[in-house]
Amino acid sequence: MGLYGQMNNKTGFELRDADYQRRVRDSFARQGLMAHLGAELVSLEPGGVVIRVPFRGELTQQHGFFHAGVTGAIADSACGYAAFTLMGAEDSVLTVEYKMNLLAPADGEELVAKARVVRSGKTLKVCMADVFVKKSGMENHCATVLATIMCLAGKADRPR
Amino acid sequence: MGLYGQMNNKTGFELRDADYQRRVRDSFARQGLMAHLGAELVSLEPGGVVIRVPFRGELTQQHGFFHAGVTGAIADSACGYAAFTLMGAEDSVLTVEYKMNLLAPADGEELVAKARVVRSGKTLKVCMADVFVKKSGMENHCATVLATIMCLAGKADRPR
Amino acid sequence: MGLYGQMNNKTGFELRDADYQRRVRDSFARQGLMAHLGAELVSLEPGGVVIRVPFRGELTQQHGFFHAGVTGAIADSACGYAAFTLMGAEDSVLTVEYKMNLLAPADGEELVAKARVVRSGKTLKVCMADVFVKKSGMENHCATVLATIMCLAGKADRPR
Amino acid sequence: MGLYGQMNNKTGFELRDADYQRRVRDSFARQGLMAHLGAELVSLEPGGVVIRVPFRGELTQQHGFFHAGVTGAIADSACGYAAFTLMGAEDSVLTVEYKMNLLAPADGEELVAKARVVRSGKTLKVCMADVFVKKSGMENHCATVLATIMCLAGKADRPR
Repeated sequence: MGLYGQMNNKTGFELRDADYQRRVRDSFARQGLMAHLGAELVSLEPGGVVIRVPFRGELTQQHGFFHAGVTGAIADSACGYAAFTLMGAEDSVLTVEYKMNLLAPADGEELVAKARVVRSGKTLKVCMADVFVKKSGMENHCATVLATIMCLAGKADRPR
Repeated sequence: MGLYGQMNNKTGFELRDADYQRRVRDSFARQGLMAHLGAELVSLEPGGVVIRVPFRGELTQQHGFFHAGVTGAIADSACGYAAFTLMGAEDSVLTVEYKMNLLAPADGEELVAKARVVRSGKTLKVCMADVFVKKSGMENHCATVLATIMCLAGKADRPR
Repeated sequence: MGLYGQMNNKTGFELRDADYQRRVRDSFARQGLMAHLGAELVSLEPGGVVIRVPFRGELTQQHGFFHAGVTGAIADSACGYAAFTLMGAEDSVLTVEYKMNLLAPADGEELVAKARVVRSGKTLKVCMADVFVKKSGMENHCATVLATIMCLAGKADRPR
Repeated sequence: MGLYGQMNNKTGFELRDADYQRRVRDSFARQGLMAHLGAELVSLEPGGVVIRVPFRGELTQQHGFFHAGVTGAIADSACGYAAFTLMGAEDSVLTVEYKMNLLAPADGEELVAKARVVRSGKTLKVCMADVFVKKSGMENHCATVLATIMCLAGKADRPR
């Protein structure tokens, strides 16, 4: 048995593409919005992705905190890529829908979205993301996201 | 009977602040993210707001279409400000949660979010937004959003 | 060209199974919960379904109104069957997720859920339902639902 | 310092009503729907509630599994009562909205909803519930719910 289809021991998810790290990083790098927001892919593992974005005045809502749109954008990307880690080399990823509850004002120096796959179906993967805002060394849980991500089999996620 | 509390004939919503247009525009202008995305407040009326954003490479996901984070950001702002039109001069607006379904790829030259208040409670207002992408003169319905917006009474929405 | 695949003029949806009415009614009749709640299929057309349930003490929450679980149950069934009207004779229907906002207390003699398909993709169909409570001849809009429904192709919706 | 307002050591939530157990059980007992579904309140602690319902043919969807409406109903009640444990003696509880993702067919002998408060604000409490279906001694995670619950201060949750 080769690398494809082998079980990942740490997370329990089956890995269909041994080269998932490069595939996810390449796709992330093509997202113009992530660069425009200053977001970085912090870490990735099978079924899990962390994205962070440092504070800038360009990312605010009217009270000077991170705008919920930034929270939603990095949570959406984190969920989508958490699902994408488990897809095949020739698959493409699509967000079907997400729902976000804002738990506290996103007041801080950095926003971190931690996403994980909750259920990995063949076509649909359900993901959750928790978003934390860091301020003076403290992390505050400021949002939680529940997302449905779709695998488009055989439509490779390459630049058009 | 003065302007405050009078019924708006067109939309059926009660207006608590006659100067809501200026109040919403001022708040929108303080959202750093809207400027950073290039979003504009197209129109506002009691209980309804339209926001548009022209296409730029800085707003894309990996296939070169508008990123769902942009769709979510303008839909969230449109819902929040649709609710804010109905609030009092000394109130502040807060997004409690939203859920977005992506209906079609946001492939086009411009994204337009049209939000309206569906139920205007004293503390909570439920809003919906439909997002359309314009391409070659056609509008395609690419997302729909259902949001819960909160009125923070007596905490005026001013810069900190 | 036969009935299959012909465009339905009234709703604009393509009908893949001319016998959809019987197929939906048969499936509804197999839902033990609908009978247990006293719910009825009021009407169905391509992409649209209406379900009603009369008030009974067995359907209440703690204040004596319809329980949100009843609202959710008939809205979910209405959305699922609205999507199912557009599926093929050998397909099965599955709710992926739904989100419901409660707009007003469901205080009345009857609850009516009106669902329609908003976007009909091959695999996924996005539906909305509005739920109204009738009291003394008045209809009050008490809930709104946004749902994602999946088509399981080739897994006919028959009793096991 | 009396019992009111004291911190609950196990869960970290502040308890505003020492008699919350009786208050929640009384309210649950008034929900006609819970009895009609055969649902039981299994356990409750500050910020957490578990509700179970045994399988019956009256609770099914068209394939003979638990209907999503049952899953939603017990998850909604569990979230609402998890929030209600943290409210005051004179408060009433209201579901603002919930979103449910169905993760697997609810095929089994019993459905169990485990809800917990994720963020306890004064007016709004955000709750999550995971729903499991038990079959032949195994528990399968079949749904996850994210809910917003409102505290109506001073409107005691008594029969009308």
